[in-house]
Amino acid sequence: LINSSQYCVSYQDVCIAAERLRGIAHHTPIHTMHFCLDGGDITVWLKCEQFQRTGAFKFRGAYNKMASPPMNQKSQGVIAYSSGNHAQAVALSAKLLDIPSTVCMPKDAPDVKINAARSYGANIIFYDRFTESREAITQQIAVERNLTLIPTSNDPLVIAGHGTAALELMVEVPDLDLVIVPVGGGGLLASTCIVARALRPNIVVIGVQTETANHAYMSLQQNRRVAISPPETIADGICTTTLSPLAWPIIQALTDEVVLVSEQEVQKSLLFLLQRKKLVVEPTAALVVAALLTRKLQRYNQKRIGGILSGGNIASDTLRTILECAI
Amino acid sequence: LINSSQYCVSYQDVCIAAERLRGIAHHTPIHTMHFCLDGGDITVWLKCEQFQRTGAFKFRGAYNKMASPPMNQKSQGVIAYSSGNHAQAVALSAKLLDIPSTVCMPKDAPDVKINAARSYGANIIFYDRFTESREAITQQIAVERNLTLIPTSNDPLVIAGHGTAALELMVEVPDLDLVIVPVGGGGLLASTCIVARALRPNIVVIGVQTETANHAYMSLQQNRRVAISPPETIADGICTTTLSPLAWPIIQALTDEVVLVSEQEVQKSLLFLLQRKKLVVEPTAALVVAALLTRKLQRYNQKRIGGILSGGNIASDTLRTILECAI
Repeated sequence: LINSSQYCVSYQDVCIAAERLRGIAHHTPIHTMHFCLDGGDITVWLKCEQFQRTGAFKFRGAYNKMASPPMNQKSQGVIAYSSGNHAQAVALSAKLLDIPSTVCMPKDAPDVKINAARSYGANIIFYDRFTESREAITQQIAVERNLTLIPTSNDPLVIAGHGTAALELMVEVPDLDLVIVPVGGGGLLASTCIVARALRPNIVVIGVQTETANHAYMSLQQNRRVAISPPETIADGICTTTLSPLAWPIIQALTDEVVLVSEQEVQKSLLFLLQRKKLVVEPTAALVVAALLTRKLQRYNQKRIGGILSGGNIASDTLRTILECAI
Repeated sequence: LINSSQYCVSYQDVCIAAERLRGIAHHTPIHTMHFCLDGGDITVWLKCEQFQRTGAFKFRGAYNKMASPPMNQKSQGVIAYSSGNHAQAVALSAKLLDIPSTVCMPKDAPDVKINAARSYGANIIFYDRFTESREAITQQIAVERNLTLIPTSNDPLVIAGHGTAALELMVEVPDLDLVIVPVGGGGLLASTCIVARALRPNIVVIGVQTETANHAYMSLQQNRRVAISPPETIADGICTTTLSPLAWPIIQALTDEVVLVSEQEVQKSLLFLLQRKKLVVEPTAALVVAALLTRKLQRYNQKRIGGILSGGNIASDTLRTILECAI
């Protein structure tokens, strides 16, 4: 067992988060997938966070943060910035905890995400992710209105909450050899590392990004936290410019590799999940399957693979575009 | 408890089918859905047969038939006609039981269904469902090549196999007040009636059809088995002209009502399942939710409702068309 106390989040923190989320977050189903690659038969266990409340794993982090002391002072409101899923997560958590919420979303976020945040009662403020700094805007409003910022991933309680997805997966399927998750801010990957190394020290832990949103890949290569320009990618859930400072040291120390997949590989994998597995996922979730179907992990030669499908909030337009490219 | 021995299928037959399918068919997950209609809060338990092998409940019937004596004589081949799901079911069952299979499919069946049947090793023969009789073609080939016909629903073992979906649903959720299933040939509805009346005599059992494919609705109204012209409907899974003769007396005696939904209501419900519940369903499965969302069952004033989502084999073109109509 590694000594995880050197990081901002420990395995115990994830277990505490799991207790806090019990009966609140869904214990999401795991779907299996068998396929034959050159090396032999592979079984994949997919943790289906599209069936989580708000349609993504982000609810686990936001609720864990907001339900923890000292956040559960109901008098103050919360604020968050997000490309969508975290916004919904904060909005629903706020509603459940009876706290007013404000979310700053990029004006090009999918309608389905904007409408969902609104339906949970959040006050929405839009920004232009190419010209404006969401951090600056959010900070300014937070100060002006005395609101508490709920970070997307740069917070120990948020990261611990995200880790409950990997915890449920690895408790239900205890003998995985390799686990794959998509990487945006790094909260999901960092917490998956913590859980995976605690429960099964020799497991291979892999992150996936797209070729354009490749900051974690570059960070591991250059051994420093790299920041990139706002990327253009169909995977809006990982449309970040850098890893969160708290997630980076965990990822640096405990991740085996971050692999990259192309936009086309993401689309093909999304279609595969839709048509063959009857699973609705957002492009970010399809990254996990893209890494497998394109044989990018073949050198590990592992047969029992776990993956976290991060969410299912895909805009109708995006899905239509992907279906038009279908052969 | 009703005396079900007067029908071609008894509750015991369904239990025997369940034993035969154990470890072969998937025990599919149940997704819940809460919504608020005028009468109050309703909970719906949806049995997700899109996650069944071959992507539809039909596998349960075909395998039960083909694995039963005297069908398990491996020397002879099987033949089936089907708009798609039954074809896949027969093809996969034949592969699992090592029997050669031939399926007759309408030439306008979704590619996804044709390709799937082919991928299981079936020999495929196409017919024109507007000008040719699939029964006549199939019968002729069956005689010529000495093949055994596997009916889509007009067979006690096929119907008993279909009933295992309702059995799993009602064992897992024993206190349902109402259950809804789509109606094509009537195998699913008839077997659901048998199971529902055995386990919970006073439950309301509802069938759903589209306005154009309304033969079961008309049959109940006229108290005779009505046949219609080949209907035009987006719900290709229920694109039949009449109820199976064996299913009809069961449906006549034990179904409370068959309700009709419009093509547009089916499309809206399919989108609702896709966008809100992240569930991929074929149009036929969406009928169940359409009946609920359009308040067609409100007079029963039931709060605990079960439904069977029959399958998830939707063609890319159909899904794209439906997404284009999305607001």
